[in-house]
Amino acid sequence: MEFLEQLRDLSKQVKFKANFGKLSEFSNIVVSGMGGSGIAGNIFSELYTKAPVQVISDYNLPEYAGRNTLFIGISYSGNTEETLSATREAIKMGCQIRLVTSGGELSELGQDTVKVPGGLQPRAALGYLIKPFLSTFVDDNEGEYERISGLLERMDTNNGEQSILAEELAKNTLIPVILGYPPFRWIAYRWKTQFNENSKVLAFSSFFPELNHNETVPFRDTYKKDVFRFIAFGGADQRIEKRIGITSEITKTDFLRIEPKGETVLQRMFYLIHYGDYVTYHLAKYRNLDPEDVSVITELKNRLRE
Amino acid sequence: MEFLEQLRDLSKQVKFKANFGKLSEFSNIVVSGMGGSGIAGNIFSELYTKAPVQVISDYNLPEYAGRNTLFIGISYSGNTEETLSATREAIKMGCQIRLVTSGGELSELGQDTVKVPGGLQPRAALGYLIKPFLSTFVDDNEGEYERISGLLERMDTNNGEQSILAEELAKNTLIPVILGYPPFRWIAYRWKTQFNENSKVLAFSSFFPELNHNETVPFRDTYKKDVFRFIAFGGADQRIEKRIGITSEITKTDFLRIEPKGETVLQRMFYLIHYGDYVTYHLAKYRNLDPEDVSVITELKNRLRE
Repeated sequence: MEFLEQLRDLSKQVKFKANFGKLSEFSNIVVSGMGGSGIAGNIFSELYTKAPVQVISDYNLPEYAGRNTLFIGISYSGNTEETLSATREAIKMGCQIRLVTSGGELSELGQDTVKVPGGLQPRAALGYLIKPFLSTFVDDNEGEYERISGLLERMDTNNGEQSILAEELAKNTLIPVILGYPPFRWIAYRWKTQFNENSKVLAFSSFFPELNHNETVPFRDTYKKDVFRFIAFGGADQRIEKRIGITSEITKTDFLRIEPKGETVLQRMFYLIHYGDYVTYHLAKYRNLDPEDVSVITELKNRLRE
Repeated sequence: MEFLEQLRDLSKQVKFKANFGKLSEFSNIVVSGMGGSGIAGNIFSELYTKAPVQVISDYNLPEYAGRNTLFIGISYSGNTEETLSATREAIKMGCQIRLVTSGGELSELGQDTVKVPGGLQPRAALGYLIKPFLSTFVDDNEGEYERISGLLERMDTNNGEQSILAEELAKNTLIPVILGYPPFRWIAYRWKTQFNENSKVLAFSSFFPELNHNETVPFRDTYKKDVFRFIAFGGADQRIEKRIGITSEITKTDFLRIEPKGETVLQRMFYLIHYGDYVTYHLAKYRNLDPEDVSVITELKNRLRE
């Protein structure tokens, strides 16, 4: 599948019917996942507040993990070394286990697994990877996902705005800095990673109100500030919107505001995710680069195995 | 106290004797703190793995917070609006409460409070703010802190290396990107915030192995790469060191390695913290700026109150 088709697949993926089935009681959740897979856990961790959720991006489980822990291992390929290592520890520690993968070694561990369709780049499979979390813990109303799908499809047929932003970045060789706010802190991080992998540009993310306690200081300085394009998500509550407005004003920093469409948090969340997909896709195209190519990561993995 | 003296105060602060006293049982920890105060909670969250620790940098507590939650509110000034709001919620929700502050409204809530000496910039009080966490949960051996203090004092009398790095950054107007690894991910973030507040420069942090799943791609590109100086902490275990070496090699990226001194994780941690303090202090001096001045944050707070 062409990479553009892979991105477009998101509107189908959000209708993917899958959940973690019946769960025993647990007092905390540990999610293991790296990169494009781990982001599903991170986004989930912001939406779900009924139990502590810790997303680990490392080989080892925290000491507290045990019989009261719901462990969820996500690896699209099923062969991510950190996640395999963490899952094996989770089995030993007696955690309740659920896995999300398209195959690989992870699918052969004999655990309760949500199998998702393969053949995509992991970062183009976010809908599949996050859907079991959303259906199980956040919202299982299929009508909601029909609406999200429609919202994304409209973007698929018209992404003029996204292309204009990409062109501005490319023409001026700007480094994007994406400013989120709860519950969209990890969506800002998702944009960063999409800029990294699709567009091959350095990018950074940060969020309100935390950034008002440190990053606001250099916003007022001029030190290399013109290298960056600051992009701040819109649609926050009044308290955060006031912060964004005042920060921009007193530091004389122009924040490009991206206003999410949608009536609910989930709708706005997927809208922002897909918006970033297109910006980063178009930026690769303006740079005459293949948005799908991440051969350097494959090379790194091969070298690590030597 | 001069700002340089405030930084030097760290070697005294690590000998500060304070802990959270006798605690009832809890099944999770929620820490509320912003900026220079919150970082104490974040660093703690990487060192302590016997219970889930969630650091919130927002007004509201997660829904799961309740009688089984140990809530720790940290605000050096005692007047941080997000932390005051979260602490009031924690009281309502029946959490077990401990506070760390030098005064302000937080000290007037009638809760069990560790009072720390005032008169410093919050970011120069990290030793006071983190010490109750370390003495209670990590290591209460006073000998350890004597050794850390000695290590920091030696840096106080000789910070040639740190000054050289600052000069390199200033001369070439470079943006620092600090690459950490567990358990020093938040120390990399601490450097970022110190660059922001002390040196008034934009700075970013990221960490291994997660960055191998995204940021490694632009490392191999040339898009504005020469604007940045990549700084990677040394002293990781073999698996991470191998990653750092191969990443540098295949992306042709020069990582300035900072090798922490010290025999234990705590010693290396404080060494790296203090190292960053000095680099950012010297960078402010090379830029002819006052490292203490964060008037823009004061202005922001005043405007938010209007």
